[in-house]
Amino acid sequence: MSVQTSSSVKRRGQYSVALDNVRFLSRATVVGPKEGQGLLGRYFDEVETNEMAGENTAEKAERYYLNRAIQLTLQKAGIDASKVHYLIAGDLLNQIISSNFTARQTGIPFLGIYNACATFAEGLGLGSIIIDGSFADTVMVAVSSNYLSAERQYRYPIELNIQRKDCNQMTVSGAGACLLARDGTGPRISLVTFGRVIDYGLKDVNDMGSAMAPAAFDTLIRHLTDTNQNIGDYDLILTGDLGKVGSKMFRVLAKEAGLTLGNTHMDCGCMLFKPQQNAYAGGSGAACSAIVILGYILSEMENTKYHKVLILPTGSLHSPLSYQQKESIPCIAHAITLEM
Amino acid sequence: MSVQTSSSVKRRGQYSVALDNVRFLSRATVVGPKEGQGLLGRYFDEVETNEMAGENTAEKAERYYLNRAIQLTLQKAGIDASKVHYLIAGDLLNQIISSNFTARQTGIPFLGIYNACATFAEGLGLGSIIIDGSFADTVMVAVSSNYLSAERQYRYPIELNIQRKDCNQMTVSGAGACLLARDGTGPRISLVTFGRVIDYGLKDVNDMGSAMAPAAFDTLIRHLTDTNQNIGDYDLILTGDLGKVGSKMFRVLAKEAGLTLGNTHMDCGCMLFKPQQNAYAGGSGAACSAIVILGYILSEMENTKYHKVLILPTGSLHSPLSYQQKESIPCIAHAITLEM
Repeated sequence: MSVQTSSSVKRRGQYSVALDNVRFLSRATVVGPKEGQGLLGRYFDEVETNEMAGENTAEKAERYYLNRAIQLTLQKAGIDASKVHYLIAGDLLNQIISSNFTARQTGIPFLGIYNACATFAEGLGLGSIIIDGSFADTVMVAVSSNYLSAERQYRYPIELNIQRKDCNQMTVSGAGACLLARDGTGPRISLVTFGRVIDYGLKDVNDMGSAMAPAAFDTLIRHLTDTNQNIGDYDLILTGDLGKVGSKMFRVLAKEAGLTLGNTHMDCGCMLFKPQQNAYAGGSGAACSAIVILGYILSEMENTKYHKVLILPTGSLHSPLSYQQKESIPCIAHAITLEM
Repeated sequence: MSVQTSSSVKRRGQYSVALDNVRFLSRATVVGPKEGQGLLGRYFDEVETNEMAGENTAEKAERYYLNRAIQLTLQKAGIDASKVHYLIAGDLLNQIISSNFTARQTGIPFLGIYNACATFAEGLGLGSIIIDGSFADTVMVAVSSNYLSAERQYRYPIELNIQRKDCNQMTVSGAGACLLARDGTGPRISLVTFGRVIDYGLKDVNDMGSAMAPAAFDTLIRHLTDTNQNIGDYDLILTGDLGKVGSKMFRVLAKEAGLTLGNTHMDCGCMLFKPQQNAYAGGSGAACSAIVILGYILSEMENTKYHKVLILPTGSLHSPLSYQQKESIPCIAHAITLEM
């Protein structure tokens, strides 16, 4: 353990905090048809047969997924929404409207967050702090993203059928929600390292994996140093949505620093789709890491496949406007330790 | 005190939390020329003579204000950015780019938040919880808004010179930042009540004051009930940016519930500009409540004018897209008790 210079008893090293008793009370995932037909399809609670879920706009469809994931999470825990102390939620749409309108529907006191595709990790970290500090009994953390609503906001309307590069990623259509509490027997959250904004000057919004990899690496190093751990202390180091290209860069950065990731590293974006599903460099979006972690990882932890996992969701913090103004892509990653 | 049914020791009533030892260590405000020439001009740390602050885009100007407020706050506390544990920041631009790029500049671990013009209160509440729970020694909370960047994103480019209604409000150009810590002799944050999303079905984005008033009232009632307090327990109940029209509605709602606000209620949006400054129904924007609270209120608390103040920053959680899709305006308000 590194020397503590902080007067805050929960801090570990310069950047991290330790939590004594935060657990997943329940969780749920709702995904689109493509995600349902993918490699992890059987791990998701509900698969929509139609991406639009019966709604007349992509934005309303995204809200449907998000609200449905929250309702399923409440059902599984047998808790009424009125008993949940906070809803911490975020998404990729301007002014995070998916979260705002869903919060209106649930009536739970609401804290809106935005760290792009790292939003789920930000929410888990904040929710864990609130629970661990005895500021709430239950906190709902939820995120969503949607291929149709994201494409037309960030890139082009789908109908234009714009050609893509191999380094492009597919925004995941789906939502993940979980209830955090002090009780229960589920996997627990034991360490949180919130990330700094890292920017290597990359400007290609068609290759966000490469832009985000240095942020994931920065947070990984700080997490391991603060908590006096090695790669070998984890069964799995799971980045959020670096995709094939970004994962490769993440491995290069680790190798240059003398770390051997080997089979310990996997990326949520590379785990979702089958090769024939034409998802280019893999999945992305705020829901990408949420559905893989809540759907697959926690289940496999309960099945004893994994005992201790470090999740590293990553986010690109640019906007279409900052790109048009020739700015590079600032990125972030938060590290959270899950233990069975 | 109402009966506690929660197992979380920090909770008060159904919705609120109590904090033992959270104080403002330092704070700073940076504003545009119009705000500087207004009623509270002498309370702000820096007044820019040019709204663009020497930058070539409105978005970069907004970032300049935000970074400058953070740097001044660090200077006043005599603390290096590397010693600050978290930066919690948000703004009104899509993907909160003002905060993202400023976080990149500071290098402080970053948590992005969005609750529109209630973002400052969300940040203060979260920062207080992190400090009070001993998860950090110092947390920087900062927000910004800018008339030029907000107008062209939410309404029309300034150059079009679109006519306004009397119920329109002016987005404040400015930024406020503060460092929260357990030590110090400054005013302290003692109670936090995070709000629910309230929507009375109003759809006029030219009258956001009326849309937000019910959210402010909902949070006020829940705060007073939870903490077993009356209006008379406060020297001031300060809403965020209801403006003239929304403040009137807030008073009507209070009166209907049998509460007499009298001179105890003021609104940040109504306090900034002189009548001849042509600010319609008053100021608005994420910086509106931040600069009034950090610049004026805390100073007057230190001058013993106010002993105990309830701040109620309010936010409209719509987006231009949700408006175009004929949705009503979901709103939120968070209540925070400041004590000397």
